[in-house]
Order: sequence, then structure tokens, then C-alpha cells
Amino acid sequence: MSFNSFGRIFRFTTWGESHGPALGAVVDGCPPGLALTAADIQPWLDKRRPGTSRFTTQRQEPDQVRILSGVFEAPDGIQRTTGTPISLMIENVDQRSKDYSEVALAYRPGHADYAYDAKYGFRDYRGGGRSSARETAARVAAGAVARAVIPEVRIRAYLVELGGDAIDRAAFDDAEIDRNPFFCPDPQAAARWEAIMDRTRKAGSSVGAIVECVAEGVPAGWGAPLYAKLDSELAAACMSINAVKGVEIGDGFEAARLTGEQNADPMRPDSLDNGGDGHPLFLANHAGGIAGGIATGQPVVVRVALKPTSSILTPVETITRDGEASEIRTKGRHDPCVGIRAVPVVEAMVALVLADQKLLHRAQTGR
Amino acid sequence: MSFNSFGRIFRFTTWGESHGPALGAVVDGCPPGLALTAADIQPWLDKRRPGTSRFTTQRQEPDQVRILSGVFEAPDGIQRTTGTPISLMIENVDQRSKDYSEVALAYRPGHADYAYDAKYGFRDYRGGGRSSARETAARVAAGAVARAVIPEVRIRAYLVELGGDAIDRAAFDDAEIDRNPFFCPDPQAAARWEAIMDRTRKAGSSVGAIVECVAEGVPAGWGAPLYAKLDSELAAACMSINAVKGVEIGDGFEAARLTGEQNADPMRPDSLDNGGDGHPLFLANHAGGIAGGIATGQPVVVRVALKPTSSILTPVETITRDGEASEIRTKGRHDPCVGIRAVPVVEAMVALVLADQKLLHRAQTGR
Amino acid sequence: MSFNSFGRIFRFTTWGESHGPALGAVVDGCPPGLALTAADIQPWLDKRRPGTSRFTTQRQEPDQVRILSGVFEAPDGIQRTTGTPISLMIENVDQRSKDYSEVALAYRPGHADYAYDAKYGFRDYRGGGRSSARETAARVAAGAVARAVIPEVRIRAYLVELGGDAIDRAAFDDAEIDRNPFFCPDPQAAARWEAIMDRTRKAGSSVGAIVECVAEGVPAGWGAPLYAKLDSELAAACMSINAVKGVEIGDGFEAARLTGEQNADPMRPDSLDNGGDGHPLFLANHAGGIAGGIATGQPVVVRVALKPTSSILTPVETITRDGEASEIRTKGRHDPCVGIRAVPVVEAMVALVLADQKLLHRAQTGR
Amino acid sequence: MSFNSFGRIFRFTTWGESHGPALGAVVDGCPPGLALTAADIQPWLDKRRPGTSRFTTQRQEPDQVRILSGVFEAPDGIQRTTGTPISLMIENVDQRSKDYSEVALAYRPGHADYAYDAKYGFRDYRGGGRSSARETAARVAAGAVARAVIPEVRIRAYLVELGGDAIDRAAFDDAEIDRNPFFCPDPQAAARWEAIMDRTRKAGSSVGAIVECVAEGVPAGWGAPLYAKLDSELAAACMSINAVKGVEIGDGFEAARLTGEQNADPMRPDSLDNGGDGHPLFLANHAGGIAGGIATGQPVVVRVALKPTSSILTPVETITRDGEASEIRTKGRHDPCVGIRAVPVVEAMVALVLADQKLLHRAQTGR
Repeated sequence: MSFNSFGRIFRFTTWGESHGPALGAVVDGCPPGLALTAADIQPWLDKRRPGTSRFTTQRQEPDQVRILSGVFEAPDGIQRTTGTPISLMIENVDQRSKDYSEVALAYRPGHADYAYDAKYGFRDYRGGGRSSARETAARVAAGAVARAVIPEVRIRAYLVELGGDAIDRAAFDDAEIDRNPFFCPDPQAAARWEAIMDRTRKAGSSVGAIVECVAEGVPAGWGAPLYAKLDSELAAACMSINAVKGVEIGDGFEAARLTGEQNADPMRPDSLDNGGDGHPLFLANHAGGIAGGIATGQPVVVRVALKPTSSILTPVETITRDGEASEIRTKGRHDPCVGIRAVPVVEAMVALVLADQKLLHRAQTGR
Repeated sequence: MSFNSFGRIFRFTTWGESHGPALGAVVDGCPPGLALTAADIQPWLDKRRPGTSRFTTQRQEPDQVRILSGVFEAPDGIQRTTGTPISLMIENVDQRSKDYSEVALAYRPGHADYAYDAKYGFRDYRGGGRSSARETAARVAAGAVARAVIPEVRIRAYLVELGGDAIDRAAFDDAEIDRNPFFCPDPQAAARWEAIMDRTRKAGSSVGAIVECVAEGVPAGWGAPLYAKLDSELAAACMSINAVKGVEIGDGFEAARLTGEQNADPMRPDSLDNGGDGHPLFLANHAGGIAGGIATGQPVVVRVALKPTSSILTPVETITRDGEASEIRTKGRHDPCVGIRAVPVVEAMVALVLADQKLLHRAQTGR
Repeated sequence: MSFNSFGRIFRFTTWGESHGPALGAVVDGCPPGLALTAADIQPWLDKRRPGTSRFTTQRQEPDQVRILSGVFEAPDGIQRTTGTPISLMIENVDQRSKDYSEVALAYRPGHADYAYDAKYGFRDYRGGGRSSARETAARVAAGAVARAVIPEVRIRAYLVELGGDAIDRAAFDDAEIDRNPFFCPDPQAAARWEAIMDRTRKAGSSVGAIVECVAEGVPAGWGAPLYAKLDSELAAACMSINAVKGVEIGDGFEAARLTGEQNADPMRPDSLDNGGDGHPLFLANHAGGIAGGIATGQPVVVRVALKPTSSILTPVETITRDGEASEIRTKGRHDPCVGIRAVPVVEAMVALVLADQKLLHRAQTGR
Repeated sequence: MSFNSFGRIFRFTTWGESHGPALGAVVDGCPPGLALTAADIQPWLDKRRPGTSRFTTQRQEPDQVRILSGVFEAPDGIQRTTGTPISLMIENVDQRSKDYSEVALAYRPGHADYAYDAKYGFRDYRGGGRSSARETAARVAAGAVARAVIPEVRIRAYLVELGGDAIDRAAFDDAEIDRNPFFCPDPQAAARWEAIMDRTRKAGSSVGAIVECVAEGVPAGWGAPLYAKLDSELAAACMSINAVKGVEIGDGFEAARLTGEQNADPMRPDSLDNGGDGHPLFLANHAGGIAGGIATGQPVVVRVALKPTSSILTPVETITRDGEASEIRTKGRHDPCVGIRAVPVVEAMVALVLADQKLLHRAQTGR
């Protein structure tokens, strides 16, 4: 129950400003006994790191995570979670505060600058302060811990659209996702996106994107109606990522355009088809794996829409802190498409929600 | 912070099954001194009531609400909230349990039947039990209390699309919304929807819809980063409504297809134009009134996608409780388009979130 | 996480004023599948009921509880919890509002009257409104549901002191507790207390009491450091009961007067003594069953101090709502010793805390 | 809603093991605009620090706190809270892990060792891990932030009893508290306690103590019935401190031995006596400043009982991790009386509760 914490049992709290000395997360409620070292977390941060390609922001941050508490060497010699809070810290190294000097005085349209001042009276304007996407590094670190809680689930996110250009689902190749800088499963789309991005970057403009995330292996039953519904929690979690303006499950907004017959997910006993394990076989997945807020056992499918970065070179009308008319053009190093680096963040949020739901389900049902 | 409660300060808990004796809500954290009687709540329930037109379900429920606690006659003779929990109760009258007899044995695809059994082991199958849309009556009642907390805000919801047929924004007429059974602001679209609905109902089929809700007068500053963001809370609240598969803010998924220049909301000092009150004038509202999770003062715009009802006459393959292959066709009285009656529910959820955010903002900032 | 809810997973919310139409509780997070009918709850309410002896208040309330949601007939024909919220309601019958007429104008010292007005601006003064001990009926009903969650625990409360007169521990007879109107385990003390009470009642005065509650069978491990410690939760739960001014665990305040050697609870392997089950045998229980906030497996021992009722016939100086000097004597029907009827309430609160802790433990550890 | 967080609005989460690299707290919900630097926090930590006299543990920890987030230089040049989470970190320097080698194998009776293993399966045994009193450094740091939120309140704690020896209330001298190593307001008692402590330390034994804390200036109205009552929150907060076995408010357990007449706190209009401010004048304070869970405006009085440290040199029977009979004597550096250093911790917890209650009250009532 707080502003900067998420989750009911598996609960994390993040802290840290973009240009402060560090940022971090405290993860509470983690089950004891899970193997966990900084090396388990670092790869997920590296996936998110800025400066890894010419298509993302050129700020160079090593994003090295340290675990300051909550783990200990178990009797078997392996470092494991103790069940106490796990404090993760990442130090900021490459802040270029001078790039933000103009920002202190005028509000960047589309950013949270004006809103923050309206709420708090003043703000740490450097690098977007708390509203910066750097906070997502803390989430990704926490998400890595969450994955240890749900080894039965496989989570995979990727871009399905960039700058309005969509992938071809028929050409979907899972292995392609890690081969290009866009987490794109369609090699031809990836090539087109390279051109779009070069064009956008040179123009000092920005584009939006749509991220899709699939979680397989989620047991039927996770999710707690009515106000801890799995889809509600996923919606809140994803909407809390910077620049997200929409979240949908399964067919999402398209479902609004189908009839009941088209939208149905018929069921068959699994045994009829392949000597299954007692769980039904679904013949479709319009629901995106969730019905009535509870997982059905189908793959959970979430899609997230990210708007284009508001940090662009084109001057935009705005006002200053003192209410005077002004104009602003944002210099500094920015992502022309924040959707790309949002991919590991979406994965992390999905992992965090599922870990919490697993423990909630276990709490109430013992399963 | 539990499964059936929503909100942090202004917090409501709902209870009740569709075919149980009653359903209700307990509203906690309501400020004291607000004028409140059952007559203030009843109109919002009437707006939601089934059986009010041939286009909605034919179950006849008076949905009369009683206030059982939390109000008292103040020294000025007016009944007002005391600051203690407000218990609201609505009795169920018109349950036709025999219509659901077949449901006890087989799972209705697309409904929560299977998922509930997977979670709890068994369920009250009558009328969809707790997963039924009747629970939304409790929300609407709670939402009426929330409105008393935020008199400065005007909330209005309406359908913008039904069965894939969209309104013409240029023909938007606010007064039209209450003149047709569809909460439709475009009279010509309303006429087309009448035909669509008659066709759908006769076929025993169903269609989806998209609801849009606008809240005007939300002061800049409401909303609490990072995990009590106004958009996150709205997303969670709306996603928790039955049949919702997508939520978007402002331009939503369309923002993913715009460039930074197209998506910008430039600002001007209000005084330049009309001797304003110190708040900026925004030249556009792609953001939908929220930036960085905090309200900007612009109208807050939310859009919600509802899938078509899964209760259709066409037989659909399914399995029984015992895992046998079967077929089901849902008889009984159902909404061919649940989106229509979701309109007042969306309004209620938006009111509930805004009331909570107002108090949260006041808690932390004193404003 | 609100004002009128308690618990994190097994969470209940109470509502209702003393002279309102009804009062009740909504219990959320209850595991599904537990056998539960109103008949399981009623006996606990009867134990608490006013008017059962000449030593307690003469208000006659049948306190009949109804279950309005959250239970259903399972496939085996037994009514069981469904895992959805359980709404319990008790109707008020015997309100004598005229007995409180004087109270509307002047504050009763020691009661919450002044404090409530200071907080809310006005209050439902009838019968003490929300601050009345009648609210405890709702807790006792919720506590009965909690007991179904923890069948492995045996909870027993009784008075150890009344009006400064203490029981003789050497004469402790468990069977005696239900044989006298004082829940007193020492027959001779019960006789003395009868005299004290008659004297007190005739004088229109009141006395305090100390309740002790023992919970046996609490598995080692329940309790979650640091801020959901079992003793913290018990302290909060018991302190929230009307008229409670102190809570202690094990030796409590006496522990402050012991040395480390005197306060130690030495341990032996259980097998040395009686082929046990792997749990240690404790040679003493100064800790009261809790160490570091976690249950040790020893009996959990809590003691609660209740002040004398502030509702007495002797006039006491006070002020009116308008700030004028005045005097008040409380007429009406009151408990000369609220400690007596607090016994089942303490049991209920201990049950509620233990049920919640069981689920929390299960959530984090799977055990 | 978590295990290691406390508070609803002004909410802090602590982390860190006694022998880990660091410990800390994240404070969320702090109002923006409050002046805050590390220098504001350090004095409170110094007050708590081990090794400051021969009467407390000889572990030398500088306990230097760093503020890693949540503050920024405001336009007026002063560093102030931004309203975002405040991360505080204190590094551990002087761990002597070898002093705990024996502890890894056998359970120290009275400590949380056995309970932790029963809950989590294994534990960081060094220095008591998470159950160590070192965690209280994090609380004290958070408490310093809380004080900035409630400048209208004056909080003062001191020992009223040590090793069974009580102060003489008639000799109470506020200025004496900071002049002796015991936070004792009675100089003669302080002299006696010096002898008691020398004797105890030489014998390798330990004694308990009782801390009293008074908060003046708490406005009438703070506190939220029923389950966020001010006394409940204080009880939970204080009971969560290591070694606490009892908490009482006002007359506490003694109130159970008074009659209604003796326990009454009569009221007079303040103006009668000294042209006051509209608040009543109380003629006594048996209630300890709280009635019905809400502050009355009287000084809030809390008393906390601490048991003697279980870390003593005398061998005590215990069992090993493998369930074998054993004996343990605790070497290493320990407090013969943890009650002394608990004084600033109690102050911190009271500050934290009051800060949270202030914001809660403001949330619901706007005052």
C-alpha cells in the first residue's frame, strides 16, 4: 500500500533518481532457499542497458548490480535467499547533468515535468529525475529475482510493431529475437526497422512501438478475483512503465470487433489428443490465457503500446516554471524509440506479477 | 490490500454472488461530512439496471440499495457520512437458477468456470457466481459514494464503437448520450447499432464494444508515481470489469504509430489567451490527461475494450467437470452486448480511482 | 490496508454503528473448501452476547448472524467456503436511543466522544456509534470463520484478574472456565468476583480486568519478521479492542524484572523424553511462544489489560460540544466490567491473527 | 502490506543483515519540500550507537548514514525531500564473525535462531542476521525523517526501570536524561543502575528494562478507528522492536486495577483557566492521550517492557541444528541491557507512527 511498491506478497519497492548516486530495489516476501547471486541478475540488466547499439541512447552505464542483503550461503554451499528483504543496488556512473540545464527552467511537453511540479512543488529535473526510464533498471533487477520464484514459467517478449510497421506473424522466428537490436522475431521487419530508426535518429525525431509478451506454463488457477485479477495486475504493472499508453490481453481491442462465435476458445479433454495430464486442450486463445481474472493454463498474452519519446529536437511550444511562454528542444542522449529497451522491462514486470500471484494463490489455496 | 478490495485510502470491498441473497460493498476511508442518502446512489444503479430495454438482458432486478452504516444526521439536519465504513446492500430478487442447470456440469468456454474450478476446487455456478457481472452493481453503488468525494470532477462515459461499427467524432453530441439505449453520442450510429443488436439477439450471438470515459476537472498533481500512477490505477480498475480485454489512455495504441512531433501536447500560458488561473493551456491532448502517471489538468481520457459475451446459443465444444468431451449452448437471459451496461460501470470505476487519488494526494502533499 | 480492515491475506473489514440497523463483517481471502454455516458461527456470538447474566449489560440482543455470500453447497452436499468474500450480518434489535440523549450534547470523559468529534466534526453518538463495543460482535463472527482455517490450533481465553483481585494459578481448573459468568478458571476467585461485581454494579461504578489467552498447537515458523511479527500483530489486534490499555506476551512486563538466566527457555531434543516428532521440548515458556516475532511451537500466551468502563453514574466534569463546562453521569445499560465480555473477543482476535499468519507463512514458504 | 514494511502512507521498508555489507531503509510517502540532509539524521544514530559507554556492547560501528535518493536542492538552495522514495544506507564495518561460529550449529535459547530455521529452513546466523538489533539502526534513520513530518510534536523517551529498580517520579528531571548513560531522568536511580550494570556485566548476565515515551503536541483527531487506531499502531510498532514483551498506554496494566472513578479524565473548557485555544483542558491523563484509538490532545504516553538479553555467558541447555542435545554459552560483544539502546529506537517508532497517522488523518479529513 504505497506509492513506490508493487505486489502484495512478493513485493518490491524501487528508489533512485536518474542523476542521483544510485538506484535500487528492495524485494520483500521472496521465498527462502532459492539460489541467487548477482550473476543471476546481471544478464537481464545487460539486455536492458543503454549504449548497446547505435539505435538506443548513447549514455554509457555499466549497470552493475550488487546484492546487499537477503542472501546467504546455505549449508549446501550455495548462496540462497534467506526469506528476508533483498536489497539490490545499481550505481549511476555516466550522468551528464549539463545536458539538462535548459530543462530546469522550461517544461518538456509530454514529459512529467509539469505534472511533477504541480504535485510536489519542485522536482529533481536532472535526467527526468524519478520519472526517468532509468528507474526501470531497478525493476529489471527485481524481475530477475522474481524469475527464480517461477521456474515453471517461460516468459518471452518482443516487438511486434515499430513506428507503425508491423511484423508478419507467418514469418515469426523465435530464434531471431536475440539476433537483431530490436528484439524482432521477423528478420525482414528488422531490416525495415533499421532504416526507420536511422531516419528517425538523424531527424532528431522519435517513434512508438508495440511490445508483446507471452508467458507459457502459467498454471490454471493463478489470479485472484476480483481486484487482484491477473489481467488487472498485468495492466497496472505494464501501464506503470514509462511511455506506456495502452495494455491489452489476448485479442485485446480486436476482441471488441469479433462476435461471440469468433471469440470463443473451445475446449477438449487433453487425453483425446495426446494422453495429456488432465488439463483441457484449448483450440484457440482469444482470451490470452486469462478468463475472469484467473489463468486458464493457456499461454498468457499481453500487448503493450508505447508512445514516441517526447524528447525530440524539434522545438515545441511550452511554458517556463514562472508561467512564461517559451520553446524547448531537448538535447542530450535519448532513445528514438523507447519501445526497444522496454522489452526486457515488460518481461520483468510480467515476472514480478506472476511471482506475486503464485504466492497469493498458494496463500489462499495451499497449492 | 486484498483480493476483493480496491483502493488505498478510499477503499471499497465488494461481496456477493449472482444468485445469493444479496450483494454489496463496504466503502472505507470516506471523508466525513459529505451529504449522502440512498437516493443519491439509486439513480446510478438504475442507469445500470438490467431489463431496461430490449437490447439488454431480460432479468428483472429492482437493484434497490440500502445504506446500513456510515451515515448519520448531522447537526444541520442533513444525513452525512461519519467517516466510518459505509455498508451498501442490494438484494437479489430475480434469480432463475434453473437456467443454469446445465452449467453445473460443463464449462462455458470464455467464462471463468474452468478457471474458478482450477483455482478453488468448486464454485457457485449459479449465474456465474462471483464472476457474474451482477457484482458490478456493488461497484456502481460504491462509485456513487466516490462521486461525493470529487465534486470538482465531471465524469462522462459513452460507447464509441459497437460490433466494429464506430461513431463519427464530428457528429459527437453530448446530449444524445442519454437519448438512446446505447449511451451513444452519435444519433446515426445509434440507429445503425439498433439494427446490429436486433440481428445479434435474434441469432443468439453477441458482439463487443469500446467504451470511452472522460473526466474533466481533474486537478494537475493527482496520481502518485511510480506504482500508484493514475493511469496504472485506471488500467487495473477497468481491466477488473468483466469482459474487458484492453485499456488505453489518450491516443492509446494509436500513439504507438505517431512520431514524437505528432504526439506532442504543446503548452501555452493560460493568460495569453483568456486571463486564466495560472494553469497552462494545452494545445492538444494526446496524453489523455496523464503524464508520468500524474494528472496534468487536461481531461483524462480512458478507453476500454469489451469482448463479446461468451454466453451464446451456438453450441461450442467444451469439457465437463469430469474431463469428458461435451458441447454447450448457453440458454438463459444474457446481454448480447455487455458493453452497453458497462458504461456506468466504467464511470463508477473512474470515480473510485479519482476519489482515492484525491485523498492520496492530500495525504502526501496536504493539497 | 485501510482503517477498518485487519489482516493481510485473511482479511476482514467490519462495519456498523451501535444503533444503526445492523453491523457486519466481510471476510476476504478465506481458503475455499472449509465447511461453514451460520450454525458454526452462532455459538461464539452467544458466548459474547449481552444480557446473559446480571453481571453484564442488560441490553437484549439476539445477535443472530446471517451468511450472505461466500459459501455454497459443494459436490459432497456440504456447505463450504468458495474462496470468495464472506459477508456476515447481524441485525440490531434492542437499541434504546433515548438513554443516550444527554450524550449528544456533552462528552463522556474516557470515551471516544471528544476524540471522534475532533477527528470527524460530528459523530453518531447513539450508543457510542462506531466506537461502541457492539462492533466486537462483528469481530467475533469473523473470528469464527478464522477458526475454520486453523483447526490445528486450540485457543482458550479466561480472566486472570478482576478489579485487582487475581486468580490463584495453583488452583487453575480449565473446566471451571465455562461454569461461572466470569470465564474464571479458579472457583474461589469466581466467588470473590461475584461479590465485587454486585458491589460495583449497585454503586454504579466499574472495574477493570486482565484477560489471558493461550493458543496451543501453533506450528513453529508462523510469524513474519520484521513488521508482520506474530507478537506485533497480536498486540495490534488486542489493543484495537475497546478499553484495552496494555498487551503483553509471555512474561510480559515481568520479564523486565528478570535476569537473563531466569528468563531463558532451555531446549532439549524431544526424542530424549518421549519419542517426539522432531520438534524440541522447551523447559520453560517465558517467551510466551514467540521469539524474534516467529512462533517457536510453544504455547502462545497473550495477556490483555482492560480499563474500567467510563460509563459510570458518578457525575464527572466535562465539556459540551459548544465548549461549555458541564457535568455528566451516564445512565443506560452498561457493563460494570467490560473485561468479562472481552474474553470471547480476545479469542476471536487471536484466531484472526493466527489464520492470517498461517496463510502468510504458506505464501512465502509453501508450508 | 508486506513483511518488512510499516505504515500506510508514510511507509518505510528496512533491509539488511547484521553481518552483511550494509543495512538500510527506504522511506516512501514522505511529503515533499521538507528540509533534509544526512546531518539531520546522524545525531539520532549517534544516540543509538554501540560502543559509546562501558555499559553497552563494545562493537564499534560508526553508523554513518548516506541519503541515496529522494532529496534535491530546491529553488531556494536548501536540500529538500522531493516526495519520491528516500533511500538511506548505513554500512557495517565492525563485524566479528568468528565470535558467532558456535552459533551456526546450536540454537541460542531465547533468540530467534530456532524459530527462523523452523520458518525458512536456514538462516544467516552471523550476529543474529536479520533478527539482530542492528536492524534498529535503519529504523532510527527512518525515524529521523519522520520527525521532519511532525515538527508540531515533541517526543521524549527514557528508562523508568532497569533490572527491576524503578525511578522516583517525584525526582523526575528532564535535563538529567541526557546526562547519564541510561537516559534516566532520576539522578539517584542512575547511580544505582551503574552499580547494577557493572555487576551484571561482570557476571556475564543480563537485565531487562522499561522504557517510557511521551509525545506532546499530538493534535486531537490523529488515529483512525478501528484497525488503524493510534494505540494499535504504537503497540505493533513497539512490539516489533527486539526483546519487547509488553506495551501499554497511559495507566496500562495498572488501569485494570482502578475503578471507573479513579480512571476518569475529567475535562474543563480551556478558557476557564487560561484563555486557551478552544481545546479542552484535561484534569488527568489516565488514558495516555488516546481514547477510542484517537488522540485526544493530551500527551501520548507509551510504556515498553524489554526482557533481558538472551546472550549470556551462563551455559544453557539447547539443541543443535541436527536435533542433538547440547549446551551454549554466548561469547562476543553484547548489551547486558538492551533496554538502554532501545530508548532512541522507541522514539523513532513513535515518530514513524505519528507521521503516518498525520498523513492518514489529512487524507481522510483534509486537516
